Amino acid sequence: MRATLIYGAGDVRVEDVPDPVLRTPSDAVVRVLRSCVCGSDLWPYASREATEQGQRIGHEFLGVVEDAGREVRTVKAGDLVVAPFVYSDNTCEFCREGLHTSCRNGGNWGVHDVDGGQGEAVRVPQADGTLVKLPVSGNDTALLPSLLTLSDVFSTGHHAAVTAGVSERTTVTVIGDGAVGLCAVLAARRLGAERIILMGRHQARTDLGREFGATDVVAERGEEGIAKVRELTGGSGTHAVLECVGTKPAFEMGIGVVRPGGRISRVGVPQYSEGLIGRYVFGNNITITGGVAPARHYIEQLLPDVLDGRVEPGKVFDVTMSLEQVPQAYQAMADRTALKVLVA
Amino acid sequence: MRATLIYGAGDVRVEDVPDPVLRTPSDAVVRVLRSCVCGSDLWPYASREATEQGQRIGHEFLGVVEDAGREVRTVKAGDLVVAPFVYSDNTCEFCREGLHTSCRNGGNWGVHDVDGGQGEAVRVPQADGTLVKLPVSGNDTALLPSLLTLSDVFSTGHHAAVTAGVSERTTVTVIGDGAVGLCAVLAARRLGAERIILMGRHQARTDLGREFGATDVVAERGEEGIAKVRELTGGSGTHAVLECVGTKPAFEMGIGVVRPGGRISRVGVPQYSEGLIGRYVFGNNITITGGVAPARHYIEQLLPDVLDGRVEPGKVFDVTMSLEQVPQAYQAMADRTALKVLVA
Repeated sequence: MRATLIYGAGDVRVEDVPDPVLRTPSDAVVRVLRSCVCGSDLWPYASREATEQGQRIGHEFLGVVEDAGREVRTVKAGDLVVAPFVYSDNTCEFCREGLHTSCRNGGNWGVHDVDGGQGEAVRVPQADGTLVKLPVSGNDTALLPSLLTLSDVFSTGHHAAVTAGVSERTTVTVIGDGAVGLCAVLAARRLGAERIILMGRHQARTDLGREFGATDVVAERGEEGIAKVRELTGGSGTHAVLECVGTKPAFEMGIGVVRPGGRISRVGVPQYSEGLIGRYVFGNNITITGGVAPARHYIEQLLPDVLDGRVEPGKVFDVTMSLEQVPQAYQAMADRTALKVLVA
Repeated sequence: MRATLIYGAGDVRVEDVPDPVLRTPSDAVVRVLRSCVCGSDLWPYASREATEQGQRIGHEFLGVVEDAGREVRTVKAGDLVVAPFVYSDNTCEFCREGLHTSCRNGGNWGVHDVDGGQGEAVRVPQADGTLVKLPVSGNDTALLPSLLTLSDVFSTGHHAAVTAGVSERTTVTVIGDGAVGLCAVLAARRLGAERIILMGRHQARTDLGREFGATDVVAERGEEGIAKVRELTGGSGTHAVLECVGTKPAFEMGIGVVRPGGRISRVGVPQYSEGLIGRYVFGNNITITGGVAPARHYIEQLLPDVLDGRVEPGKVFDVTMSLEQVPQAYQAMADRTALKVLVA
């Protein structure tokens, strides 16, 4: 089959790889109908060291079960399924607590002989724990983009909102107008937040943010951005800050706009090891929370609203390309000519 | 009257100062019956630059109202009262949310012409918001030490436990065997925790920790300490970590012993500005919380258990000295020959 490999910064290729087959009785093989490129794929695309050997990549996919091992109970050949961005057994102590990203038997796509999502098919370990059956057909093409966002970006935005304690009583700042930031706006609105300030500077994106529920857009960054959000909130900042970028300046801006007693949830993979958590954070009782989103935990919760169209997170896909075009998809997202590329 | 001033590292003096008088109609003057020296007083005692002008110090006190301004409604002359370690109006938006340490009209003892607690009397700003009337007499001397801990250390230990989400379902590590650490053990036990690991190396203190509810004591520090806690918890660490020291190594030890999905609450004033909050914290969905404790918010909640003797946080006072001996009290605590000195 054909699948995507990354060889180094700026070097993504679609190549022939072995067809996936069941290796253990708990595996399934899924034929991919939709996949996509993630903002987090752009970090290795920007900086990964060049290697002789490519590595499979892609961690968001939706497709049809082609084959299932004899221990697999919850899905069968022909089912339309979505996979979260890590696989997990859904039974260990961490999964039972909703922290599937810390599953004792889980892992990442694209490493250790596990397929990546940007390919024609994927062998899915822990298929019962990982895959969620979708009660629609693969022919419901209008729904597929939104369903695919359950794999990562919508679940991740939701995780930011949940861990930051967003409710109808909280004001919210979302930092970042990428797909996760926009999904965080949508998630915050869905949880009842009435005041949502989106910090971003790409108008096409912030316009979608307004459609998703942002009440204010702040294009300024750094100290200027902080001053603007404080001005919009009577000087106090917002109860919840959803940091959807992952850089140190974004985190520091988050500290600058959070209200005393408030919560910053980080869902952008941090590209820094140390951050300001000294007397300011301590003196104001600011909570730093979030982390890698346990998407598997959220898929079933979010699914009904996606199915009935109450939310349409799939609008973050502004470009569709074929699997063979994935290298161009990376480049378009790196160049910010595409917000998020659907691979179909 | 006599009161304590700090002039620099190692230089604490008891001197004559003006008697406090009402300055605004919302002030009260409290004659101090009991005060004490705090672990946080030891930071300036260790490192404060020498100054010509001394600064009043002390932020924990309990006493009898001597005079109250005409706007003061909740306390009157003759009432026994305890003061939290910051004053606050108890009516602003932050106070109403229980975050009295961020009060819009609050502030610290000992600065800006406000008296310190280590003196014969204190002018109390925002008396209605700040003081809590105690339903006992100043002659109930056996109760006074425990009542005084509501001012800071017991409330602070409780804040650590509350913000870390301690309950009967959580395992807990307490880092630090100072008065706050021991009170955090007591608070965690009071909230139902059954497994409480106390990290400390002073046996007299850890023995009191066991009396307060610690089930395990780990004397090792750093990597060794982390390994020991992980060994005690089947490799996972504990759900809650109460960091009651404030140094960077203590925080890093906290990161090392927290379970994926767990919470570190910091109540030791951080003596560092940046900390490790990169991929490890993110990847394991660890929440960093806590901060300066809104003691005023907790005093009424904790008071009944103190009054009926269900908890005896006053046991952290192992030495009693007079006001004139306060300089020796600082030295004894700095030398660790005293755990916490009661000034009576």
